[in-house]
Amino acid sequence: MGIDLTFSKSDLEGFFSPQGVVIAGASNNEKSLAYQAMLRLISGFKGNVYPVNPKYREVLGLKCYPDVVEVPDDADLCVIIVPAKVVPDIVDSCGVKGIKNVVVVSAGFAEIGGEGIKLQEKVVEIARKYNVRILGPNCLGTINPRNGLDYMFLPIKKMPKATPGYVGHITQSGAFGTTFIDIAAKQGLGLSKFVAIGNAADLDEVDFLKYFGDDEETKVVLLYLERSHRKFFDIAKKVSRTTPIVLLRAGRTKAGAAAAASHTASIAHEGADKILDAACEQMGIIRGYDWEEALDYAKIFSYCDELPESNRVTIITDGGGAGVMASDAVELFDLEMAKFEKNTEKALEEKFPVHYAKINPIDLTGNATTEDFITALDIVSQDRNVDSIVFIPLPGVPNMNVKELIDQMQPVVERCEKPISACTMGGSEADKLSELLENIGIPSFPTPERAVKAISALTKYSKYLSKFKK
Amino acid sequence: MGIDLTFSKSDLEGFFSPQGVVIAGASNNEKSLAYQAMLRLISGFKGNVYPVNPKYREVLGLKCYPDVVEVPDDADLCVIIVPAKVVPDIVDSCGVKGIKNVVVVSAGFAEIGGEGIKLQEKVVEIARKYNVRILGPNCLGTINPRNGLDYMFLPIKKMPKATPGYVGHITQSGAFGTTFIDIAAKQGLGLSKFVAIGNAADLDEVDFLKYFGDDEETKVVLLYLERSHRKFFDIAKKVSRTTPIVLLRAGRTKAGAAAAASHTASIAHEGADKILDAACEQMGIIRGYDWEEALDYAKIFSYCDELPESNRVTIITDGGGAGVMASDAVELFDLEMAKFEKNTEKALEEKFPVHYAKINPIDLTGNATTEDFITALDIVSQDRNVDSIVFIPLPGVPNMNVKELIDQMQPVVERCEKPISACTMGGSEADKLSELLENIGIPSFPTPERAVKAISALTKYSKYLSKFKK
Repeated sequence: MGIDLTFSKSDLEGFFSPQGVVIAGASNNEKSLAYQAMLRLISGFKGNVYPVNPKYREVLGLKCYPDVVEVPDDADLCVIIVPAKVVPDIVDSCGVKGIKNVVVVSAGFAEIGGEGIKLQEKVVEIARKYNVRILGPNCLGTINPRNGLDYMFLPIKKMPKATPGYVGHITQSGAFGTTFIDIAAKQGLGLSKFVAIGNAADLDEVDFLKYFGDDEETKVVLLYLERSHRKFFDIAKKVSRTTPIVLLRAGRTKAGAAAAASHTASIAHEGADKILDAACEQMGIIRGYDWEEALDYAKIFSYCDELPESNRVTIITDGGGAGVMASDAVELFDLEMAKFEKNTEKALEEKFPVHYAKINPIDLTGNATTEDFITALDIVSQDRNVDSIVFIPLPGVPNMNVKELIDQMQPVVERCEKPISACTMGGSEADKLSELLENIGIPSFPTPERAVKAISALTKYSKYLSKFKK
Repeated sequence: MGIDLTFSKSDLEGFFSPQGVVIAGASNNEKSLAYQAMLRLISGFKGNVYPVNPKYREVLGLKCYPDVVEVPDDADLCVIIVPAKVVPDIVDSCGVKGIKNVVVVSAGFAEIGGEGIKLQEKVVEIARKYNVRILGPNCLGTINPRNGLDYMFLPIKKMPKATPGYVGHITQSGAFGTTFIDIAAKQGLGLSKFVAIGNAADLDEVDFLKYFGDDEETKVVLLYLERSHRKFFDIAKKVSRTTPIVLLRAGRTKAGAAAAASHTASIAHEGADKILDAACEQMGIIRGYDWEEALDYAKIFSYCDELPESNRVTIITDGGGAGVMASDAVELFDLEMAKFEKNTEKALEEKFPVHYAKINPIDLTGNATTEDFITALDIVSQDRNVDSIVFIPLPGVPNMNVKELIDQMQPVVERCEKPISACTMGGSEADKLSELLENIGIPSFPTPERAVKAISALTKYSKYLSKFKK
C-alpha cells in the first residue's frame, strides 16, 4: 500500500495520457492476454504502441522490439504482461530506459502468498531505485476514453469500450471494474478515467483519488474498495470539497469480510461498518450500500451540475401508484414533499381540472397529454419552495408522445435551475424514453425509489458542502 | 369494498375465461379507449367478441349490436367503456341479459367524489339486484394470457401483451399494473392472470386473492396495494399455506399515505407500517419494500419449485468482488454461508489448484473455464450442508463460453434439488447469458445483492411453511 514518495499530479499523468505505450510480453498468440490487451489498445489509442518481446520481430503488424531499452524515446508508459518471475527484469529495464510509469498486469504476486509476496517486494524495490511508479501487480490498469487508452486483456467483442464522460472510477476489483464499464457503456454513462489498482504494491486508491480530485474531466469519483484506512479519509476529505465521492465498500459484514480477506487480503473487523458510516458522513463521502445504489449515485452526480438548495422535492407523474411510491421514498430517504407557493397553486389550478394534478405529487393520470407534462414541469421549476424534481412519465398512456415530450421539454429543462431525476419504468418504450431523457441531460432510473434516492444523494452532498459556506 | 355475497370460484371464472365478451361502447374512432381496447382483444382472444353501440352497425369488422340484450347467448363477460352516466343503464341491460360478470372501465365515479360516489353506489345497487358481479369502476380489468383475453385500452405498440406464465398479479393501481406487464414481458416473466381492481366497488383484492389461491396456473400472487385490512389478512393466511404471496404496499409513510389518499382514497396512519410488517410475518406474506424487490420475489417464486430446507447458501463466481458483495448480502438478509461437507472439500481440492476456489464463496477467478463452473456447481449441488446456490458467472472472462456453459449446465441443474438464483451483471453479453439461464429455469438478477435477496425470500417462506409440518 502507498509508499510515501511525494509526487505531483504530473507523476500520474503518464498513466492516463502517455505519448507512447510499451506492451512488454506482446504476443501474436490470440489466446494470450497480451495479444488481447494490445489488440484493444491499437484499436483506438491516439499515441504510439511499442510491442516488446525477443521472440517476435512484428506483433499485430507493428515492429516488435527485443527489449524495453530499445524502444523509441516517446514511450512513457510500460504495460507488463509476462510471467511473474520475469517482471523484476522488465521493471529494471524500464528504470534504465527512463520510463517512470509501469503497469504490472501479471498475476502471481502477493495474492498467492509465500514466494509471491517476496517477488512483489523485489519489484517495488527496483522501482524505487529508479523512481519508477508501479500500478499493480495483478491489475487491469488504466483507461482514458478521451485518448483511446485501453489495454484491458478482455476480448473486445465480450467487453465494449468505455465512452467518454465524467465518472472517474477507482476499483480494487478488476471484475467489478469491467462490469461497471460494461454496464456504463450499455447505459450510455461516460467515464472520465478508470483505474483498477490490483495488489496496489506502490500506487493505491489514495494516490488515484487525489489525482482524480484534480482532474478536470472527473465530475464524480466512484470507488469500489474492500478496505478503507486513515490516509484514504484524509485525502477524501480534501477531494470531497470540490468533487463528490461515491464509495461502494464491500466486505461490510463478517461473511463479506472473510470473502474479502481471501479475495484481496483486506482485513475488516466487526462493527467497522458503523464506524465507516460515521467517517463517510464526516468527510462528505456518499456511500452506496450496494452495487446499484453506487452506480445510481455516480450517474446523478455525473449528470447534474446543479445541487438542490435544500431537501424539498416535487414529483410529477401520470401514474398514481408511482406517485405514491415516490412519496414513500421521499420520506424514507430524508427528503420532504415540497409545499407549493401560492403562485404555483394558482397556475396549476388554471391549467388542470382534476384536484390531484394540483398537489404534490402532481398526478396527471392516464389522461395526461404531452402538453400537461411540460406545463407542470414549467410551473414547478419556477417555485422557490421546490429544490428538486422527480419526473416519472409512464410512456404507456394514450395521449403522450415520447418524441414530442422530449422536444418540448428541452427548453424548459435548460431554463430550470433545479436538479431533475427521472424514472422510466417499463419495456422498450420506457427504455427509449430513458435514452432520450438522458440525451437532454436528465438522468433516468428504473424505479421511483431509485430516482428519489439519487436525489437524496445530491441533497446530502449539498448539505455537507453548505457547512463550509459563510 | 367487498360486499359479502357468498360466491364460489366459478363466480369469478367468467372474468378470466369467458366464452364471449361484449364491448359496450365499442367505437371505430381510433382515438377512443374503446377502440384500443377492442383492437387489443380481437388480436388474440380465443372466444367471441360482440361490440355494442347503437351508433354503429359494424366495429373493427365485427357486427355491432345496438344493445347488450341483443348479443348472442354465449356472451358471459361485459366490458363497459362509456361515459359514466350511461353505465347504470348498461349494467341493467347486463342483468336483464343474464351476463353475471361486468367490468366497468369507465372513470368518473367515487374517485372524483361527490356525484361520482352516488353514481357508483347506484351501479352496485343495480348489480346486486341481478346478482351481477362488478369489477371496477375506473379499472383496467382482467388479462388471461392463456386464452388471449386482454382488453386494456393501451395501444398495442406502446404496451406489449403479457406472456403466459405463473405470476398472478392483483393491482390497485392501473399504471403500476401495466408497467409490471411491460417489464415482465421484457424480462420474459410470464403471467398466469392479471386484474386491476380500480375503485373496487364490488369485487376487491380479497376476492381475487382467494380466486388466485385456487388457480392452478398461479404459482405466486403479486399484489400492489395502497391499503390492507383485516379481511385481506384472513384470506391471505389461508392462501399462503399453498401459494406464496408477495405484497408491495405503497403508502407506507406519511407522505406516501397522503399521496395514496388522493390516488385511491386509501387511508393509512402512522406506525401502520410496523403493524403491517408483523401481520405479514404472521400470515406468511412476503413483503417487497419497493418495486424491484417485489418483482424479484415474484420472479424467483415463479421459477423455483424447490424451496430451500434451511438458510445455508453457497456462492459460485468468477468475480472476487461479486463474491464479497454476495457474502455481505448473505449476512445482511438473514442467511448463512454454508460450510461444506468433507466430501465437497475433497472434491473441490482435487479439481482446483487455487485456495479461493475451495472455500465459500467459490472464486474461480478470471481464469475460470466453462468446465470450472460446471464442476463447482455439480459438486456443491450434492452437498447436504448447502440449501441454496447463488451463481454469479461474469461473462467477460476469456475462457468461458456462454453457450457451452448453458448446454453443460442443463443436466446438472435438472439433477439439482436446491434452488439456484443467478446474477448476471454487465452489458449485452450479460443480458444474453441472463436469458439463456432463464431458459433452463434459473432466475437471473442484475446484482449479487438482488440474487441473494431473492433466495432469502424463498428461505423465509420455507421457514414459515415448516411451522405447519409435523
